[in-house]
Amino acid sequence: MVEKIILDCDPGHDDAVAIILAVGNPNIDLLGVTTVGGNQSLEKVTYNARAVLEMAHATNIPVHAGCDRPIVQPQEIAASIHGETGLDGVELPVPSRPLDEGHAVNWIVDTIMNNEPGTISLVPTGPLTNIALAARLEPRIVERVKQVVLMGGAYHGGNWSACAEFNIKADPEAAHIVFNESWLVTMVGINVTEQALCTPPVQQKIQEIGTDLSQFVSDLMDFFRDSSYKNDPDFVDPPVHDPCTVAYLIDPTVFTTRRCPIDVELRGDLTVGMTVCDLRGLEPSADECNKQVAVKLDFNKFWGLVEDAIARIGRCL
Amino acid sequence: MVEKIILDCDPGHDDAVAIILAVGNPNIDLLGVTTVGGNQSLEKVTYNARAVLEMAHATNIPVHAGCDRPIVQPQEIAASIHGETGLDGVELPVPSRPLDEGHAVNWIVDTIMNNEPGTISLVPTGPLTNIALAARLEPRIVERVKQVVLMGGAYHGGNWSACAEFNIKADPEAAHIVFNESWLVTMVGINVTEQALCTPPVQQKIQEIGTDLSQFVSDLMDFFRDSSYKNDPDFVDPPVHDPCTVAYLIDPTVFTTRRCPIDVELRGDLTVGMTVCDLRGLEPSADECNKQVAVKLDFNKFWGLVEDAIARIGRCL
Amino acid sequence: MVEKIILDCDPGHDDAVAIILAVGNPNIDLLGVTTVGGNQSLEKVTYNARAVLEMAHATNIPVHAGCDRPIVQPQEIAASIHGETGLDGVELPVPSRPLDEGHAVNWIVDTIMNNEPGTISLVPTGPLTNIALAARLEPRIVERVKQVVLMGGAYHGGNWSACAEFNIKADPEAAHIVFNESWLVTMVGINVTEQALCTPPVQQKIQEIGTDLSQFVSDLMDFFRDSSYKNDPDFVDPPVHDPCTVAYLIDPTVFTTRRCPIDVELRGDLTVGMTVCDLRGLEPSADECNKQVAVKLDFNKFWGLVEDAIARIGRCL
Amino acid sequence: MVEKIILDCDPGHDDAVAIILAVGNPNIDLLGVTTVGGNQSLEKVTYNARAVLEMAHATNIPVHAGCDRPIVQPQEIAASIHGETGLDGVELPVPSRPLDEGHAVNWIVDTIMNNEPGTISLVPTGPLTNIALAARLEPRIVERVKQVVLMGGAYHGGNWSACAEFNIKADPEAAHIVFNESWLVTMVGINVTEQALCTPPVQQKIQEIGTDLSQFVSDLMDFFRDSSYKNDPDFVDPPVHDPCTVAYLIDPTVFTTRRCPIDVELRGDLTVGMTVCDLRGLEPSADECNKQVAVKLDFNKFWGLVEDAIARIGRCL
Repeated sequence: MVEKIILDCDPGHDDAVAIILAVGNPNIDLLGVTTVGGNQSLEKVTYNARAVLEMAHATNIPVHAGCDRPIVQPQEIAASIHGETGLDGVELPVPSRPLDEGHAVNWIVDTIMNNEPGTISLVPTGPLTNIALAARLEPRIVERVKQVVLMGGAYHGGNWSACAEFNIKADPEAAHIVFNESWLVTMVGINVTEQALCTPPVQQKIQEIGTDLSQFVSDLMDFFRDSSYKNDPDFVDPPVHDPCTVAYLIDPTVFTTRRCPIDVELRGDLTVGMTVCDLRGLEPSADECNKQVAVKLDFNKFWGLVEDAIARIGRCL
Repeated sequence: MVEKIILDCDPGHDDAVAIILAVGNPNIDLLGVTTVGGNQSLEKVTYNARAVLEMAHATNIPVHAGCDRPIVQPQEIAASIHGETGLDGVELPVPSRPLDEGHAVNWIVDTIMNNEPGTISLVPTGPLTNIALAARLEPRIVERVKQVVLMGGAYHGGNWSACAEFNIKADPEAAHIVFNESWLVTMVGINVTEQALCTPPVQQKIQEIGTDLSQFVSDLMDFFRDSSYKNDPDFVDPPVHDPCTVAYLIDPTVFTTRRCPIDVELRGDLTVGMTVCDLRGLEPSADECNKQVAVKLDFNKFWGLVEDAIARIGRCL
Repeated sequence: MVEKIILDCDPGHDDAVAIILAVGNPNIDLLGVTTVGGNQSLEKVTYNARAVLEMAHATNIPVHAGCDRPIVQPQEIAASIHGETGLDGVELPVPSRPLDEGHAVNWIVDTIMNNEPGTISLVPTGPLTNIALAARLEPRIVERVKQVVLMGGAYHGGNWSACAEFNIKADPEAAHIVFNESWLVTMVGINVTEQALCTPPVQQKIQEIGTDLSQFVSDLMDFFRDSSYKNDPDFVDPPVHDPCTVAYLIDPTVFTTRRCPIDVELRGDLTVGMTVCDLRGLEPSADECNKQVAVKLDFNKFWGLVEDAIARIGRCL
Repeated sequence: MVEKIILDCDPGHDDAVAIILAVGNPNIDLLGVTTVGGNQSLEKVTYNARAVLEMAHATNIPVHAGCDRPIVQPQEIAASIHGETGLDGVELPVPSRPLDEGHAVNWIVDTIMNNEPGTISLVPTGPLTNIALAARLEPRIVERVKQVVLMGGAYHGGNWSACAEFNIKADPEAAHIVFNESWLVTMVGINVTEQALCTPPVQQKIQEIGTDLSQFVSDLMDFFRDSSYKNDPDFVDPPVHDPCTVAYLIDPTVFTTRRCPIDVELRGDLTVGMTVCDLRGLEPSADECNKQVAVKLDFNKFWGLVEDAIARIGRCL
């Protein structure tokens, strides 16, 4: 079955791979890309999204710019990881298609309201500002969305504080809204995405596809390897977080998941932006709980999907 | 000079008087009424806004419904004050004009972006959800709005907790956004609006105008007298909060104001929703501070404006 | 009736006057002075307490040093107000009596447990660390203490933040403990102590007493006038906060008081250390509420007591 | 080398085993037992401590009662785990030695100040109230204590909330004080103590020792097996948390440890009492960080020590 998705992102090296996976996989129908200030400023990530779609020969996909800053917290960007452009390390093509009109939040609302209920999945890979505001502006979308599969959070640990992950900490109030609405949410957090390492053998396989796009991805990985988790011996290879969400929608068996209550801390001195997952006791049933976390990655399946998508796009040239 | 305003409200007995004052005063150009869940549910207050405009012979004024709940906090409504309908105590006319299409937030954004900068004042008299989301969806409105004159908050004390007022406590995150943006904000809080008491002589003067509308207002006041601040001997007469904002825009000398930093507490156990006004030391200059609080009401001027507006609408019949 | 008191203080210019008032007034039986880090470091304020007692010819009064820092918060001292010594502006006599042994907290506990229940009042004029820890180490003191009359807090406004007073903000957890125990607490906060201004006529009267001690107090006031509330045109004269507590114990009619629930905010971003007084509605009965705030000062009565105490000590020479 | 320790506890089934291990192991010199309200009320746990010492033929060990409630938070006890007496499931002997005089906090302070610096280790296995107040009453103990080895906290997960462990959540402010002082702290949290399961083979070995005491411990374990972590299939055997601390002092190789910054969340809505351990990046050096967490248990070594202690006490009869 083909999954209709809206990819809400802030490219970002790993967002770029998420876009490519969504474009290249035949089971994903990418309705549009929406952007949000996060890894870099809204202006930069929106340009990057358009450029990556150009690179992936997908100029048919609309791009709508969304919120430039979090709902309440002052903006933090991740320039230390993604560089000044948000996609440092590659030369981007100039997008041929102009930016689409209409705010991302309104476009998300309209798209969901104008499609059959239960047919569209939301795939946020940046701060959750757009998704949260869409749910506030039009509460009826919550029941109409098929599911939310998001990259963000952690069921323990963190990368932007001792216990918070960047996307959630960047806009905790937005995340609080998303996790507290009644829709099905699958949290693909750093505990699994940090297993999605682009190891040298993986990168070599990608490069051997031998297209402009495969070289582009390989170049992104070179920069990302150097910048992410500098000084941390656990991460000599870059963790490619964001495409994990798309991979889950293509094939849920890429991940093992566990249902559990998930909430977001808004007030702690040390814990703001923590995704508090209550993993005590027995796993609740689907009736009791429609939030779940990914807890294990099938490494080969995941990278197989990414390689396949790059190769397929290449054949379209 | 005529002031163009957008009245963002949740009628509510005192909101009704604010609508009537805005309609009836010749120096106010009421571009539209937007509604927000607050004193009662969005559905009820939206109906009430339309019915009050019908009552005031102002069916030319568009009404756009906005957010039905606060950004983050669970919704609290003020049914204890305004009754089950939000306007208990009167028979409402059936609105002849249908509800206008388009979400209040989008209509506020479009109206500001399509008018000359510096010409429109925002007048929120309910929770600040719509105003805050408009500023997040289109940050450029902040520079284009002439000023925000809001009913809400207190520079000391409270009515919905020991130190918070209802409109702010109902959506503290929204209030935090509004007070932290760079626009000029005048806070007309309960410290002055609780001086705007509809005393028996005032109510008699209104009633003596002798129109359907004057009787309508008088009936509203009868209910409001009984419901508001029950058991509090300081309030035998109802404080008519919301029209104070419109009165300030008609004639700033109705109030004495003082500039001071204003921020909203989001995290206290006891103080969530408090408008923290720093009144220490010398009053800052307008260059240093563009937030101000109303500190004193000219009672006769205020009620003179209200009576005049009711009378003028009456003459239009 | 003579009131037995323990004065727990951090001298400090106004604490010095509190000591002098307690020593000089015949209706106060000053059992001992305990000290706490606050206006200055524990070492300095303890020395100051001993020196002021020397100056007041009261070397019979024991002095016990207590806590050097707040329970949880990092220490803040008020050197900007009281200078490097904590009593800048005067030459202090060398104390002839050595510092008494035993920690202030233990001495407070032992003194209360070894006296008849209901006979001793606690009079804290600094951060509430000692008092709070005494209540935690020996919970039975709470029922045995006659009452707590403390200088600190505000029912609106603040002097150490927009809505917090120094003594409470310096150790909010301690204040939270004190206000939440079941004893009778009278809060003499800055809303009234800022009325206890040492005006030029008051100071002249003190000086005219013509003793070393009256000159000492006058010199303290000269320094305090210059340092406190610099730049604030409302305070050309120094507010002499701390002796207000002792004055209340000598003659409760020096103040008008109002019963109300009082709690201390521990968690706000803007409001930590605020004494939240719920003044809404009718004043609760003494059965319903045993916390009260002083709301009005009888200026002449207050200064009359201070002048009398200085004069009486003088006659003892 | 013999380790001098003060065991500060709230028996509690696992505290009882900690006392027995401390009494029975020849490398531990148990200077005294202090008690704190926690698993049950102060009165009950103090009686239990005396009764367990009686059972262990250690009536030479002084017992001092400490704080009956947390510093700030309302008291929570763990009656659901330890039953109405705090040691349900066994018949306790009547203690022959009367309770020692002097508050635990004062006795801890005096004992540390009267011994050589660097010779005494503090071993808290309950809420940290006594230890925290001792550090506040006499700050010089912090430098004189050899180390603090405490049972409490978690570097992820929790047992009293989704992310907090009972001992820390019961008095977060006390824990905040202990973790923020400059002494060496080893946190033995539930991530390792939940590995210290009293499995049937372990319990059988204990029972086979064949003394009254071994039967007593076995009976404790029977009750504890039924009560702790009911409904959680991961815990069919009871986790015997508290003696892990004593075991670490006897032989540090019972645990693998990792240095990391540790702080305690005081303000979160969801995270109060969480021990936030920053495990990102490289392990800091001992110079950079003197807080550490136990991360792995040597099961056989641990239970070997417990069995040996029970057997040795038995031989003393």
